[in-house]
This record gives sequence, structure tokens and C-alpha cells, in this order.
Amino acid sequence: MYDANNVFAKILRGEIPCNKIYEDEKVLAFYDINPKAKIHALVITKGMYANFQDFLEHSSDKEITDFFRAIVHVVNILGLKEDGYRIVMNTGKNSGQEVPHLHAHILGGEVLPTDSL
Amino acid sequence: MYDANNVFAKILRGEIPCNKIYEDEKVLAFYDINPKAKIHALVITKGMYANFQDFLEHSSDKEITDFFRAIVHVVNILGLKEDGYRIVMNTGKNSGQEVPHLHAHILGGEVLPTDSL
Repeated sequence: MYDANNVFAKILRGEIPCNKIYEDEKVLAFYDINPKAKIHALVITKGMYANFQDFLEHSSDKEITDFFRAIVHVVNILGLKEDGYRIVMNTGKNSGQEVPHLHAHILGGEVLPTDSL
Repeated sequence: MYDANNVFAKILRGEIPCNKIYEDEKVLAFYDINPKAKIHALVITKGMYANFQDFLEHSSDKEITDFFRAIVHVVNILGLKEDGYRIVMNTGKNSGQEVPHLHAHILGGEVLPTDSL
């Protein structure tokens, strides 16, 4: 299911640069190159999962907690805790998922539109 | 931080009805009464957490994995796996979070807009 030629896999391999926010042995966080909000960060796993569904079906409990705890760590680095933020995770074609490597969008820094959530 | 007078707390106490999709000892899933997509479900914890940030800061590893595994279970009940779906979790005022009880939106059943993700 996982295609290692996707852009985020290339970023993880150092073949493409990114504007890094945070990195540890489990995740990498960087700014989205096409921001949909004043602050728009991405958190990706170093594990090779195509999307949220693939991740939840095939990962260990520890991988799940590591990922979501890392997201909050990045939120705190970005200073988004007080005013709030949105987490978005897309899976599959109806969602508009562009890169087939698990990623959570963190959107904030301004009041976000709620017409389509 | 948690206010037990919110609508979802009332649903959990049986004071307000909901259109239930799934329930176990940890979570309740039901249809959003103001859907933003053809299929729009909510998954809420039975634990009293105000939002994603509060949940990740104060819950156990097991509560975290139980919640996200339940979300995928609900996705599968709804038949959204094949065509895809979006998970959205809002925290705080900039996100437009309406009910101060942790909930994940599951959106699908049609091609979703990606202008604001």
C-alpha cells in the first residue's frame, strides 16, 4: 500500500529539503509549503504508513501515542495552545489527500473557517 | 477546565438524545446534527476532556489508543474506508470548537473541499 516515492518519504530521506520545526526518532514536523492558514505545520511519522487508516490498522499502541503526543509537542513549540488550533488528517481520494504518507495538519495562528470544518 | 454542562456531556448522561452509530465503554459515536458533509459523524470520549489538547495532556496511553482505534472502527461501520474520509479535531477559540468536550469529526461520503483543508 505504501509508495516510497512520495514527497514526504523523499523529505525523510533528505532528498528534498523542508522548513523543519521539530524532529525526533519517531516524527518530523515542518511547515506546509502551500499554507492554508497563517500557521500551517505538518507532522509526519518516520514509520511508512500511507495515511491515518493504514496507521491505525498496522501500528503498535506505542507508535500511536508517540505520534499524537508529538503533535501536541509541536503545537506547543508553535505557541498555538492558548488561542487554539485545528488538527486535520486525510485518508484517501474523497479527502483530497495529496501525499500518500501519514501526516497530520496543524492549522492555527488566526480564526479558522468552519463552513466545511 | 472541563464544564459538565456542555451538550455532549448531556448526551452521555442521557439527558439529550443522539442518533447513535456506535458505543462501547470508552467512546460514543453519533451523527452530527448540523452535517458539513454527506456523512458527518462525531466520536466522543466518555472521559471528561475539553478538547484534543486537554486529552493529550491528561490522558493515559491506553485512553489515547482506545480513542483513535474507536475512530477507525466507526469509519469502518460507516463504510468510508474505500473512498476515504477526513478526521478533524478542534481545540480552542481560533478553531471554532463549539462544544467543550473532546470530539473527532469524521467527514466523508463525497469529495471534500480542500480550500481550507
